[in-house]
Amino acid sequence: MIKPMLKPMSMSMPMSMSKPHYQRHVFFCVNQRDGGRNCCANHAAADCREYAKQKIKAAGFHGNNMVRVNQSGCLGRCAEGPVMVVYPEAVWYSYVDREDIDEIVEQHLLGGEIVERLRI
Amino acid sequence: MIKPMLKPMSMSMPMSMSKPHYQRHVFFCVNQRDGGRNCCANHAAADCREYAKQKIKAAGFHGNNMVRVNQSGCLGRCAEGPVMVVYPEAVWYSYVDREDIDEIVEQHLLGGEIVERLRI
Repeated sequence: MIKPMLKPMSMSMPMSMSKPHYQRHVFFCVNQRDGGRNCCANHAAADCREYAKQKIKAAGFHGNNMVRVNQSGCLGRCAEGPVMVVYPEAVWYSYVDREDIDEIVEQHLLGGEIVERLRI
Repeated sequence: MIKPMLKPMSMSMPMSMSKPHYQRHVFFCVNQRDGGRNCCANHAAADCREYAKQKIKAAGFHGNNMVRVNQSGCLGRCAEGPVMVVYPEAVWYSYVDREDIDEIVEQHLLGGEIVERLRI
């Protein structure tokens, strides 16, 4: 059986029609897996998310038309975790500690440059 | 004081360089606010998210390079809730019931056409 293709966005409704509500919308996976399996929640994901959010708030850039930092359920990339994703750019990162978060916030979320060393 | 501008993505690293891990990444706000305040969790958000996920799984389109349906914390649009957002298109919807979810899944997530009547 030939699997049907997932249709791309119609050309009659291009992405550019849609002005993002948030210029950058960030999702930190904070999922806790059971049975002791490796997961983002075991790597201080909630703490790092809160740290990133407060850092962006302190800079005056958290809110509509700017940046929002959310928590999410499992993003499906457990083996590479802890992970976060930045939309609409669709850039994924793996991070270790607050120093990594500092770099992502300052260089990418506020500065517009991807942090290649942390990208997955 | 003049507020500094949030920098857009650097032209040296355009969005097109980044092939999305998921062609469409959907986030349903399932946040529960306290004090009886209106919130997405009070409008069957978790049920609708699970329904959408299972519908996409049944169609064979849930996974890498296709669609992922996540839950998230508060997306900051409580007054318009329950809400969901589809990235990287950055298209936001408000929905009421499973019939709305059917339409969003079939027409947009699988079909590539925005459901204008539910868009916010």
